[in-house]
Amino acid sequence: MKMLTEIEKVLPSEIEKRSFEIITEELGDKKLVPGTELIVKRCIHTSADFDYAENLVFSEGAVEHAMDAIRRGTPIVTDTQMGKAGINKRKLAEFGSEVYCFMSDEDVAAAAKANGTTRAAASMDKAAALGRDVIFAVGNAPTALVRLYELIKEGKIRPELIIAVPVGFVNVVQSKELILSLKETPSIVARGRKGGSNIAACICNALLYQM
Amino acid sequence: MKMLTEIEKVLPSEIEKRSFEIITEELGDKKLVPGTELIVKRCIHTSADFDYAENLVFSEGAVEHAMDAIRRGTPIVTDTQMGKAGINKRKLAEFGSEVYCFMSDEDVAAAAKANGTTRAAASMDKAAALGRDVIFAVGNAPTALVRLYELIKEGKIRPELIIAVPVGFVNVVQSKELILSLKETPSIVARGRKGGSNIAACICNALLYQM
Repeated sequence: MKMLTEIEKVLPSEIEKRSFEIITEELGDKKLVPGTELIVKRCIHTSADFDYAENLVFSEGAVEHAMDAIRRGTPIVTDTQMGKAGINKRKLAEFGSEVYCFMSDEDVAAAAKANGTTRAAASMDKAAALGRDVIFAVGNAPTALVRLYELIKEGKIRPELIIAVPVGFVNVVQSKELILSLKETPSIVARGRKGGSNIAACICNALLYQM
Repeated sequence: MKMLTEIEKVLPSEIEKRSFEIITEELGDKKLVPGTELIVKRCIHTSADFDYAENLVFSEGAVEHAMDAIRRGTPIVTDTQMGKAGINKRKLAEFGSEVYCFMSDEDVAAAAKANGTTRAAASMDKAAALGRDVIFAVGNAPTALVRLYELIKEGKIRPELIIAVPVGFVNVVQSKELILSLKETPSIVARGRKGGSNIAACICNALLYQM
């Protein structure tokens, strides 16, 4: 009998490969949308939570569209420093792209205070004001998604991709449904309550690692 | 009927309070160990995953012991930059404490290469070499926990607390059981596969917010 504390001999370089084998095995004959498998499996790898095999919704062609955008050097904007920290910036730089998070910026704090919004919403305004193509990776704040929805409806931005994966209990489910209602906006959404900055970063990395 | 996209009117400052009310409500009459409730609930808040009501194991007095250590300015060492990014450093600084992550250090990379270990294991050696009291917050690497176990058994360190919450499929379960077998070491362990850098950071913050 294997002891519960018996450490398996796996080379450091082999750990991720072995993990993905276990995930594939446990997924069994679960059908995943072709082209999305590596993203779904990496979300499970990041969370040990097989719910991500059920809750991730990809708009038609979102993965290819996002990879094209990264190849053009489109930057990623996150709604947390933690999400930014988790994204592989070395890999991103190979495509001439980079990642921004405006959450700690003084002008964002001031705008949020002045307008009675969250800093997350104000940081989306700042991203829109860049006047650039942007990929949004939102893992924390429903208010960021609501603001993106408004900016899109007002014709002020047209995101290359919205990764909509906030986690939580207040307006999380609703804000994701708002993004899903945008039929012209490429999106990857974790429907329901689950997600997080780790999941947002992991989806960005999953895109990068298959390019 | 409430529309799925109908956003609830909740003041930004009230969102967290409302979330904790929902979590408390859904936990129902689930019994939590007195003194650990805020940590368990914050882990659920961070992940929307109620498994944390079942899998978190606290050694006797771990929470009080950890808070005392923080009050003395004991630093936190993480095994990811993402974990470091997620910890409330402003709050930590109020107690004269700070957070370190050695994962990107050149000497750690060199030591790992020379010894055929992971950088996570080498970064634990670097933390031990500080010769200081340390709180470890390990949310990613089982190899970090295995190395901590060895260092403790060799009498080279005596951590004030080990937050043992790596996530994943290879040696994750086993490495946590190793930490649980250390009867003299204060620990907070997410038994099983689940955890993550977000959970490691969240447990640190939950300690800080109740001080």
